[in-house]
Amino acid sequence: MKLNGLSLIGDRHGAAGGKTFTGINPADGSPLPVEFHTASNAEVTAAAELAAAAFLTYGRWSGAQRAAFLNRIADLLVANTDDIVGRAHLETGLPVARLQGELVRTFFQMRQYAQAIASGLATGVRIDHADPNRKPLPKPDLRSLMVPLGPVAVFGASNFPLAYSVAGGDTASALAAGCPVVVKAHPAHPGTSEVVGGLIQRAVRESGAPSGTFSLLFDAGHEVGVALVKHPLIKAVGFTGSRRGGRALMDLAAARPNPIPVYAEMSSINPVCILAGALRERAEEIATGLHASVTLGVGQFCTKPGLVLVEEGINAAMGADAFRSKLAALMAGASPATMLTPGIGAAYRSGVQTFSRSAGVKCLARSADGSGPTSAGATLFETEAAIFLANRSLMEEIFGPATLVVTCSSTAQILEVVGRLEGQLTATIHATQEELLAHQELVFALGTKAGRLVYNGFPTGVEVAHAMTHGGPYPATSDGRSTSVGTRAIERFQRPLTFQNFPDAALPPELQEANPTGFARLCDGVLKPHICG
Amino acid sequence: MKLNGLSLIGDRHGAAGGKTFTGINPADGSPLPVEFHTASNAEVTAAAELAAAAFLTYGRWSGAQRAAFLNRIADLLVANTDDIVGRAHLETGLPVARLQGELVRTFFQMRQYAQAIASGLATGVRIDHADPNRKPLPKPDLRSLMVPLGPVAVFGASNFPLAYSVAGGDTASALAAGCPVVVKAHPAHPGTSEVVGGLIQRAVRESGAPSGTFSLLFDAGHEVGVALVKHPLIKAVGFTGSRRGGRALMDLAAARPNPIPVYAEMSSINPVCILAGALRERAEEIATGLHASVTLGVGQFCTKPGLVLVEEGINAAMGADAFRSKLAALMAGASPATMLTPGIGAAYRSGVQTFSRSAGVKCLARSADGSGPTSAGATLFETEAAIFLANRSLMEEIFGPATLVVTCSSTAQILEVVGRLEGQLTATIHATQEELLAHQELVFALGTKAGRLVYNGFPTGVEVAHAMTHGGPYPATSDGRSTSVGTRAIERFQRPLTFQNFPDAALPPELQEANPTGFARLCDGVLKPHICG
Repeated sequence: MKLNGLSLIGDRHGAAGGKTFTGINPADGSPLPVEFHTASNAEVTAAAELAAAAFLTYGRWSGAQRAAFLNRIADLLVANTDDIVGRAHLETGLPVARLQGELVRTFFQMRQYAQAIASGLATGVRIDHADPNRKPLPKPDLRSLMVPLGPVAVFGASNFPLAYSVAGGDTASALAAGCPVVVKAHPAHPGTSEVVGGLIQRAVRESGAPSGTFSLLFDAGHEVGVALVKHPLIKAVGFTGSRRGGRALMDLAAARPNPIPVYAEMSSINPVCILAGALRERAEEIATGLHASVTLGVGQFCTKPGLVLVEEGINAAMGADAFRSKLAALMAGASPATMLTPGIGAAYRSGVQTFSRSAGVKCLARSADGSGPTSAGATLFETEAAIFLANRSLMEEIFGPATLVVTCSSTAQILEVVGRLEGQLTATIHATQEELLAHQELVFALGTKAGRLVYNGFPTGVEVAHAMTHGGPYPATSDGRSTSVGTRAIERFQRPLTFQNFPDAALPPELQEANPTGFARLCDGVLKPHICG
Repeated sequence: MKLNGLSLIGDRHGAAGGKTFTGINPADGSPLPVEFHTASNAEVTAAAELAAAAFLTYGRWSGAQRAAFLNRIADLLVANTDDIVGRAHLETGLPVARLQGELVRTFFQMRQYAQAIASGLATGVRIDHADPNRKPLPKPDLRSLMVPLGPVAVFGASNFPLAYSVAGGDTASALAAGCPVVVKAHPAHPGTSEVVGGLIQRAVRESGAPSGTFSLLFDAGHEVGVALVKHPLIKAVGFTGSRRGGRALMDLAAARPNPIPVYAEMSSINPVCILAGALRERAEEIATGLHASVTLGVGQFCTKPGLVLVEEGINAAMGADAFRSKLAALMAGASPATMLTPGIGAAYRSGVQTFSRSAGVKCLARSADGSGPTSAGATLFETEAAIFLANRSLMEEIFGPATLVVTCSSTAQILEVVGRLEGQLTATIHATQEELLAHQELVFALGTKAGRLVYNGFPTGVEVAHAMTHGGPYPATSDGRSTSVGTRAIERFQRPLTFQNFPDAALPPELQEANPTGFARLCDGVLKPHICG
């Protein structure tokens, strides 16, 4: 597949002439072929205007029509696996097998969302029938469903170049909701973005969707992204990345004359609590699992456990020691691996240095970084609860294969630490079943801090499922009421719309009395699988 | 019922000593008995801290427990109707019959939300079963439900001193969700607020809820409200009021170190489109209904129609003339009535003056204002589409019994005007059924601007129902994804939480396999009325 380095503005290519940049081979920092051209302001405007025009048609497509379109995108991703994975491997240094798995996740996600909208799962139909005889006033006929917000800006993520980038979860859920999408490509994998973007452009054409349903913009810096978030025709934003970047977008969106929602998935240290009983029973097993979770994908997962709260009571000492020795040995023996970009590699080393210099923090293991700007070894730190609580900088995420064990004297002290944490994507508890039942206060406290609670497992590995919550209170995300993974992600780009006293023939099919779409509906407060009555 | 003018901080009274204010009789501007004392900063903090402490218990109450508490509040409102309505009449000038109706709405709303949570309507349970044999990785067991956000700050509204004030929709939906509430009383009806707040305080005590589940703060100015929205323990805000006030709260919340959602219901001119066929058939009937809707409650409803787009084609001239004459006659004959506060009366007169002085705007009718600072007559303006489109100040809401008729040459011109409008709570279309079917583009366009579409009716009168949307794109509300009326309002104060691989016994009952609560659940993507499988 030949790359040309130009943005995709609806069914056309953008112009050359903007500031250029290239992909970078993360293993050695060398530039990859093809120069990419930053989109002009006029192109940003054109993409937004085309999206708004497309919304007038695409926003009225039925669930079945949108599902066919999403499935077409999935088919094209499958058919072009080699091109996509080949280029992504060059640009990100991620192993081919991991990228193949990520592509499976990407098209599975597209198909799952297609199925969700085709079956009415995200339509939320509610019908309250009229009562003309009600006193003192007649009761009107009210029917509501979820409708799309309008054009959505999506920012590709560096750490999931497929599943959270051009055809990733934000794009899939926005398109599923009925929203045209304008993607700002992540500069760390521009070629991958162009390949995938071209396939979506083709699916738009082949599905008969309006051309503005999808655009892809390249940006050497931040200007395109800023212009996109400020554009009055853009109605929502999806983003996965750093806390600083996400907060900047939140602030931009909140300062607009008409503020819009930003769904930014940003920063999480994913606390893992290990209670005494679990340590007694499974110290080495937990250490082994934790090591695998911390170093998975070179620690570049948003759900990487970066904080481990260990209950080290007197009776548990044996278990805690075994856990610590095993974990330290595994971390010290971890092979260096290639991180995504030289910038990410530098930030990892800087974060490790900051923790290493913190008073009262011991470095229990540090495996060699290897050579090259992105090669990183693993790091294990340890401190005590009192020191952790006194130094808020220890709550900051180190993006990479590092974690911090905090020794706590009791579950009460674990509860105290948890109460002081910021919002998280996940929180994990290792405990015997008896301990779990005895410490429901701790479970509740973890639940107020996180979007997902994991029992006797590890937080990495985010299942694309109906019941998944990949979200959590700020700063884990910008909006703790949302998830960016699973079919609930579609809801982020919808709002409810009510029709009052409309004649049946003029209602959307989902709301018509005979229920031609066959969706489940809430009728007069009672859930009905098919028709009301 | 004796008033003492002090805030309610959990189960205690606040201290005297802050800046004082009184209720005002709107008919003559005279002060009403009892001085009210502004809460101190320490009291704001105490209320927020008590709410956070209460959340540890109240946030874990079952739907049935919360429902019983809400029903107890409803019972106390019913039992104290005379005290509540009597004081509200003194403070707001609203007729006793209207206030009695509003109190019915208030306790009905409390009971409807109670029923919704007791039946699991707002719990949103989803279960995806494990598949230990899945390749390449086992599938985990995932179970999610909606959980409360935490303490909520509610601002009482001036125009609904019962249904959108201390025990109003925001309080009811936050308590239903499981969130403790701190209300900032509206200074225009402090006595009503104290009476109702005292009843909720009593319901808290009688229901065994923690004392911090409810607090009520008085404020002579804006300091208490600002401190509340900025307080780190407050997790969401509900507000009904002016655009300026709502936007100020949005900006405060967005600038917090940890931003929180603000649900502000602010400003809407509720366009009514009248197509040629409807004018031909029902010109006088529509004029009569419109007059009633514009002047209902002295035009102080957020759904008052403030903009009327009339299709005045050649063939419709007769109908349009008849409509205009009838409406002008009715508006000119409207009796003056008492507005809520001297400030609202002054703002009404100022808005009318601004429109009167706008080039190309004719005043078709203006009934006498009567005497006193709050007495207001009705006003009818008319202009043409071109003038309206050229002057954005004509899109601003005049809060009170005034409306603006805009003559359009065709449905295409109506569509053009609609395309230029800001977000609205409602949009109404009067049309024959043939016209409605022929102009689906107009219906779609109205749907992108509003939360509720009304056919051949009028927007005032907001049914408390499952299918109601009382929301709409900014500036109608701060968050067009939400409704402040109907059971969907509860969702504003919730977020999803997922449990991964938890043993059944440690799960919340709603998520346990045997489904002891009997709620409907989404099981492996299929909606099940009771148990999975």
